[in-house]
Amino acid sequence: MGSSPNSKPKVVRGAAGYVLEDVPHLTDYIPELPTYSNPLQDNPAYSVVKQYFVHIDDSVPQKIIANKDSPRGTHFRRAGPRQRVYFESDEVQAAIVTCGGLCPGLNTVIRELVCGLYHMYGVKKVLGISGGYKGFYAHNTIQLTPKTVNDIHKRGGTILGSSRGGHDTIKIVDSIQDRGINQVYIIGGDGTQRGAYRIFEEIRKRGLKVAVVGIPKTIDNDIPVIDKSFGFDTAVEEAQRAINAAHVEAESVENGIGVVKLMGRYSGFIAMYATLANRDVDCCLIPETPFFLEGPGGLYEFAERRLKENGHMVIVIAEGAGQELVTESMQALQKQDASGNKLLQDVGLWISQKLKEYFAKQKTMSITLKYIDPTYMIRAVPSNASDNVYCTLLAQSAVHGAMAGYTGFTSGLVHGRQTYIPFNRITEGQNTVVITDRMWARLLSSTNQPSFLIAKTAHEEKKKEEAEEMDSFNL
Amino acid sequence: MGSSPNSKPKVVRGAAGYVLEDVPHLTDYIPELPTYSNPLQDNPAYSVVKQYFVHIDDSVPQKIIANKDSPRGTHFRRAGPRQRVYFESDEVQAAIVTCGGLCPGLNTVIRELVCGLYHMYGVKKVLGISGGYKGFYAHNTIQLTPKTVNDIHKRGGTILGSSRGGHDTIKIVDSIQDRGINQVYIIGGDGTQRGAYRIFEEIRKRGLKVAVVGIPKTIDNDIPVIDKSFGFDTAVEEAQRAINAAHVEAESVENGIGVVKLMGRYSGFIAMYATLANRDVDCCLIPETPFFLEGPGGLYEFAERRLKENGHMVIVIAEGAGQELVTESMQALQKQDASGNKLLQDVGLWISQKLKEYFAKQKTMSITLKYIDPTYMIRAVPSNASDNVYCTLLAQSAVHGAMAGYTGFTSGLVHGRQTYIPFNRITEGQNTVVITDRMWARLLSSTNQPSFLIAKTAHEEKKKEEAEEMDSFNL
Amino acid sequence: MGSSPNSKPKVVRGAAGYVLEDVPHLTDYIPELPTYSNPLQDNPAYSVVKQYFVHIDDSVPQKIIANKDSPRGTHFRRAGPRQRVYFESDEVQAAIVTCGGLCPGLNTVIRELVCGLYHMYGVKKVLGISGGYKGFYAHNTIQLTPKTVNDIHKRGGTILGSSRGGHDTIKIVDSIQDRGINQVYIIGGDGTQRGAYRIFEEIRKRGLKVAVVGIPKTIDNDIPVIDKSFGFDTAVEEAQRAINAAHVEAESVENGIGVVKLMGRYSGFIAMYATLANRDVDCCLIPETPFFLEGPGGLYEFAERRLKENGHMVIVIAEGAGQELVTESMQALQKQDASGNKLLQDVGLWISQKLKEYFAKQKTMSITLKYIDPTYMIRAVPSNASDNVYCTLLAQSAVHGAMAGYTGFTSGLVHGRQTYIPFNRITEGQNTVVITDRMWARLLSSTNQPSFLIAKTAHEEKKKEEAEEMDSFNL
Amino acid sequence: MGSSPNSKPKVVRGAAGYVLEDVPHLTDYIPELPTYSNPLQDNPAYSVVKQYFVHIDDSVPQKIIANKDSPRGTHFRRAGPRQRVYFESDEVQAAIVTCGGLCPGLNTVIRELVCGLYHMYGVKKVLGISGGYKGFYAHNTIQLTPKTVNDIHKRGGTILGSSRGGHDTIKIVDSIQDRGINQVYIIGGDGTQRGAYRIFEEIRKRGLKVAVVGIPKTIDNDIPVIDKSFGFDTAVEEAQRAINAAHVEAESVENGIGVVKLMGRYSGFIAMYATLANRDVDCCLIPETPFFLEGPGGLYEFAERRLKENGHMVIVIAEGAGQELVTESMQALQKQDASGNKLLQDVGLWISQKLKEYFAKQKTMSITLKYIDPTYMIRAVPSNASDNVYCTLLAQSAVHGAMAGYTGFTSGLVHGRQTYIPFNRITEGQNTVVITDRMWARLLSSTNQPSFLIAKTAHEEKKKEEAEEMDSFNL
Repeated sequence: MGSSPNSKPKVVRGAAGYVLEDVPHLTDYIPELPTYSNPLQDNPAYSVVKQYFVHIDDSVPQKIIANKDSPRGTHFRRAGPRQRVYFESDEVQAAIVTCGGLCPGLNTVIRELVCGLYHMYGVKKVLGISGGYKGFYAHNTIQLTPKTVNDIHKRGGTILGSSRGGHDTIKIVDSIQDRGINQVYIIGGDGTQRGAYRIFEEIRKRGLKVAVVGIPKTIDNDIPVIDKSFGFDTAVEEAQRAINAAHVEAESVENGIGVVKLMGRYSGFIAMYATLANRDVDCCLIPETPFFLEGPGGLYEFAERRLKENGHMVIVIAEGAGQELVTESMQALQKQDASGNKLLQDVGLWISQKLKEYFAKQKTMSITLKYIDPTYMIRAVPSNASDNVYCTLLAQSAVHGAMAGYTGFTSGLVHGRQTYIPFNRITEGQNTVVITDRMWARLLSSTNQPSFLIAKTAHEEKKKEEAEEMDSFNL
Repeated sequence: MGSSPNSKPKVVRGAAGYVLEDVPHLTDYIPELPTYSNPLQDNPAYSVVKQYFVHIDDSVPQKIIANKDSPRGTHFRRAGPRQRVYFESDEVQAAIVTCGGLCPGLNTVIRELVCGLYHMYGVKKVLGISGGYKGFYAHNTIQLTPKTVNDIHKRGGTILGSSRGGHDTIKIVDSIQDRGINQVYIIGGDGTQRGAYRIFEEIRKRGLKVAVVGIPKTIDNDIPVIDKSFGFDTAVEEAQRAINAAHVEAESVENGIGVVKLMGRYSGFIAMYATLANRDVDCCLIPETPFFLEGPGGLYEFAERRLKENGHMVIVIAEGAGQELVTESMQALQKQDASGNKLLQDVGLWISQKLKEYFAKQKTMSITLKYIDPTYMIRAVPSNASDNVYCTLLAQSAVHGAMAGYTGFTSGLVHGRQTYIPFNRITEGQNTVVITDRMWARLLSSTNQPSFLIAKTAHEEKKKEEAEEMDSFNL
Repeated sequence: MGSSPNSKPKVVRGAAGYVLEDVPHLTDYIPELPTYSNPLQDNPAYSVVKQYFVHIDDSVPQKIIANKDSPRGTHFRRAGPRQRVYFESDEVQAAIVTCGGLCPGLNTVIRELVCGLYHMYGVKKVLGISGGYKGFYAHNTIQLTPKTVNDIHKRGGTILGSSRGGHDTIKIVDSIQDRGINQVYIIGGDGTQRGAYRIFEEIRKRGLKVAVVGIPKTIDNDIPVIDKSFGFDTAVEEAQRAINAAHVEAESVENGIGVVKLMGRYSGFIAMYATLANRDVDCCLIPETPFFLEGPGGLYEFAERRLKENGHMVIVIAEGAGQELVTESMQALQKQDASGNKLLQDVGLWISQKLKEYFAKQKTMSITLKYIDPTYMIRAVPSNASDNVYCTLLAQSAVHGAMAGYTGFTSGLVHGRQTYIPFNRITEGQNTVVITDRMWARLLSSTNQPSFLIAKTAHEEKKKEEAEEMDSFNL
Repeated sequence: MGSSPNSKPKVVRGAAGYVLEDVPHLTDYIPELPTYSNPLQDNPAYSVVKQYFVHIDDSVPQKIIANKDSPRGTHFRRAGPRQRVYFESDEVQAAIVTCGGLCPGLNTVIRELVCGLYHMYGVKKVLGISGGYKGFYAHNTIQLTPKTVNDIHKRGGTILGSSRGGHDTIKIVDSIQDRGINQVYIIGGDGTQRGAYRIFEEIRKRGLKVAVVGIPKTIDNDIPVIDKSFGFDTAVEEAQRAINAAHVEAESVENGIGVVKLMGRYSGFIAMYATLANRDVDCCLIPETPFFLEGPGGLYEFAERRLKENGHMVIVIAEGAGQELVTESMQALQKQDASGNKLLQDVGLWISQKLKEYFAKQKTMSITLKYIDPTYMIRAVPSNASDNVYCTLLAQSAVHGAMAGYTGFTSGLVHGRQTYIPFNRITEGQNTVVITDRMWARLLSSTNQPSFLIAKTAHEEKKKEEAEEMDSFNL
């Protein structure tokens, strides 16, 4: 998915290479919609604000490193309240749904959507769809008011409940129509946002006056374009506990190894930032950088050396790291098809077992390895202060956008500014750690771990030569 | 072990059924030892204390529930400083060793032994034995001073390092003799305390003027006689994080199950207290109470019912619970001998898999199960304030005892009073949750979980009848 | 107060000096009350418990240090469920009230009273009296159920609200009668417990079948007889943050002084335990030990010396310490009667100003002083795991006692056992730190602060001599 | 200050309104300096990084909200390593100094300067100047190595010590020359940065090859140009504890008011963000927005209304709020000149007293007010994970800049990118909350507090009219 067969991107061009990648608007397919004065104009809290309304042409550049001759490049529409809105307060029937895994801040986003709609725009009808996408057609809904959501930002999880999958575009849009919903706020990861895009397309096809707004959620921080995803900051903070524990365990025995698995199926941001923030980590393994266990420059060799030098070591591994190695191992075991083997698909358990086996076989060094998987203890905490403020801004921007008639967009922070981004830009790929970038170099410099990249290449070159001789090598 | 072939218990009897189970003293086997005035008499901090020295006959009863006619029963010698000591300050060469797994408070005990010896008794020579028992003969030692241990109580783990096993009585006592050590402080669990007893016996056999003192360490709180073990309080506190996370995860999905494994190989104190403190737990499984999965009154049935009622549930399981069920499962799998299967010896992973399999087979209900193992994150935290004070008292009592010439004893809290307890009383068995006691009843009442005990019996009765008919049943 | 003009203590005597200080019972003044079988007998959670019911004669000694010839001394009735109860489940109309300042654990006690009554005894009617004693006649009440109190133990404060004073015995008992309340649970400090005693006396006078139960609350831990008060443990833990901050502030400047004021109007337990747990404190000042500022052995001299040695120092001061010095200062200032001066009645602000003035006058040393008052940040936290379990036991014991017909008692922990204690024993005095005891000596030894006691005496002797000469000295 | 008599700003202009405000370079006044290959080229951690070196012309715009015709505006030089450096590793003698009040992250910045110099550039000689600016000439220095700073980021405060003032440009530069220091890293607030600028000017005057680098520190976040200051995030997080406590205290009594004073002498960022993150605050008062107590639209009226509605309220006040009101009050009291009055210069104590007095006088409502000042408990905590990463980047950018020969600059984050900013841009003014901006409107909308601005104006208009009539008004 991610591509959008039906809709073509709205692009505006300007001087000096200026490009605006705009988001859809209800008037794109419903021509003569009436507009109304923005009720914020009468809100005492906002009445002192000068130039409160965002200038119609404001945008935020995607790339800000510039030099005097560089073209201005891609921009996104700046988020914020508009002078005129396309919904009357009484007319709005909003719906909120949360999909996918837990992430700190979900409840804060829900709270601020409800309070934003209520306090800023006088919208009283907000439905919570329970249990993710399938809740549109399979569950009861919950009426949400500022009172019912008042304290939820101090709790982890999502009061609406969540689920994976369950997306049935037609059924969902039928339900939206049946219930008279005209603003849909969809909080979820890239799969969820692709679903949101399909909902938007179907709604456009049916010509409905329904704004579809995505709020990107991924604890892994792997959504492209935006600065960071909500909950990420809290997750990195909470990961410190696990790394500290691993460090204490490793330090307190001879040849102690502490292994911590952190979230990150496709991208290693949490592992990288948690490592950079902590400084007690000896090796950080992420999906973006392949690694290998055996031979010169491999993990075994590094672990052995580090244990000899320091007597202990801490390894942080993202859940998606080394998948090809795990798969390889699994294939070898599969023949036996034992139920316990499935557990080894967990890269943390797998690498722990591998290290234990290696040192047991070596017999030169007796190690003690402790494995910590803090995943659910991280995901389930309430969002910290920084994420709370971020979630508030995200939610309010989403509300301003929907009220202003924008649709088929996600609310996102770009260089510290709230923007509206077309769905396709969010779902077209994953944001990953660029291992040829300086942040990763910083990490390598901090851990002094081998850059498996080079070592491996060198190693493979060597192996290739050997293979030619032996004519049988097969990694 | 635990029995003591060489030494006979020292027992003193008094009126109204009074019994004192006394601890050995250096003078038991070295008759004419000189004594010295206790240096605390000249310590400004202590000089204002009236009746500072413990009365020679003070003791603390093991059992305190009394009625007007009950016999007075077993007592232990009260800990504390004595008027006369059997070591001169300059003469003392103390050694401290930590053995076994981590436990919050280890560093505080080390700190307070060092500071207690130094500040109270003017003892300047304190050695840290590194890496557990085997450090006596295989490692270098560390000189410990109040300065080097000043901040260690704010760190988790043990600065001395630890290890399991490695006990070689002869080598250890040789090392003690070689190094001129005359006070040995041994911090460790019941295996370690049995080792301490053997060291004491060997030392007595050789007629050495060496005081051997045990400080019982077990995060599981499974040491008999004493009120609670140090670190237990911190562990129960820290376990709350994991239970809260499991609860949030379970609540946020449809039919969510959160499983938390807590420490407790032979006793379920941590699981029980963490459950009682938290109140979000639906089922707590501990080694002391057998449970079963299938059939009426079994865990599957209970889980199904609870999910139907509440939509989610939280299970806390002690690591030693259900061992017979796990073993049974293992035997079935063993034939395949796959490496992954070993992981299923972890009862937390095992029960998680069992529950998943059950609900997958049932097809009536689709569950989402999240398993959390916070063990190392709990063990590695620094001790809390309450444990810090407790460790201080334990360590100072140990020092007072050794200085007063007592040996072959452990320092322990009995009904809130520091006492000296003979080794054999500490090692003769394990303290376990008495499931026919009120604390466990409180838990059952709080969780409303099935009392597998009765249900099982009833169920087994029923099955026995069936088995007789079928002549083939085999659980 | 504390004396009880109307009721005489119930005392039972036994062999070997055994004394039982018993609590009143409804049958003391209402002779032929019917009894009922305890509903716990049919409770599945309790049905497996052997000897679940407390033996009618069980008691717990107040003093447990014994020697072979010591008399057995005072005992209190052991708490717990009795075979026969004096209330039918349907008949009970319970009321709960919280009085005085906040203390961690209030909500847990409320929760467990409600859940204990409901789940153990099938009592459905529980009223919360809002806003303290005066709520009986001035406020509305709140219906409490297990559902409404389900999560409150994870929040600080009291959901019932609290207040000081407002006790009007007659109005309260009128209200109790009017509302048909027959079990009253009163949570509060010694003033509150004295009020509870008056309520009990009035109820007895009127011959009502109403059980009056006190649950002693004092964050200061200054209630006599009992081991410790609920919330104390949490308070000592939370105080660590303030002391750590004071230490960091003091260490980061030249001649830095960190001053932390902790709770303790009449007793210094929190200050003492927080100091013992922390170890970064240079001086701990409590109400029980007078101190003085000027001259040899005074605080100024000590501060100057400590700053010269270490470059920084941390002072912990209980709110009730040095009251006579503050009063003296106030009298000097009173003539000016400025509104700001009242603030100096806060001993923390007062001592901070005194130290600043002293060093400003001295001119030998320029100090930087940071004052921290964490009182409300400590009081308002939720209770920790240890206090949660303690509160549960306290509340359940209270419920068992009331159901069993006991009245005019408080629920309290004595040597780790739940007991019923007559009101007068709780209110007859304050528990204070015994500064000629070893715990305080431990603190002095840990901080190396001057024992002002002795120094002052010496100093005063000297001053007395001078005074005789000068005939004008007036401290 | 802030103006720079000697140096003129370096400005580069480009197409479409592009302006680069550049920073000084050693070659500006020492023409023919030799350059060297950047040692990072041989660093294994960095060798895999493509385009590791920052392009010579890279810059970051100060303003990023754009529309298609807007001019490109001011830019700052992008931070990062350069191909050529102006110091050989052996040649560098670096010095680090911390000035002013504590701020979370100081130790992390120190650590990362030391480790950055050492690991990235092979610089072995790094001096810590102790006790702030005056340490250059009045104190001993500390040799800093990666080993000595290894764990310091987990501690609050600054290991170097700090002080206010003590700046003597000539003495400092003399000391720099005497010690052979050629890179000076100065961490401190705006006063400190102005001092750094004077040092830079003096060094330039003397023609020394010494790079002077400022790292802006202010917990208040009031430094212009940059996104946020380090430690701010941690401070906002830690402030939550105090607000939560105030809320619990206020809620637990009738007419409870919780007052929390937060840092912010000239700007209310901490108060504003802490309020936005928390949501239990009823009124947030900051220096940027005047407020008044009496009359319609005043604080008293609002407090009374809020208490009637909710029964409690929480006020957050920045330390610099309402200074004109405090001064006024002080002047009234001054005549009496009592020592206690000085305490009322603390706006938190002052407003607490004012509110108490008002409600005492009113007699319609009896309030209970609790005042919390968490300042030192916030400042003294270690930096959180997010600030740790930020401090790392700041420090590394500073090192890259100095090695590349830049001087007289501060390292700062602009729209998420590290830049080099001329001193004058940092010191020319204070960053303050723009109360006619949307963030403050968000807060007003969240708290529903009166916008004193308007109310006051209206009120004053009315009062002006009255005054004319009465000819005697005096506010």
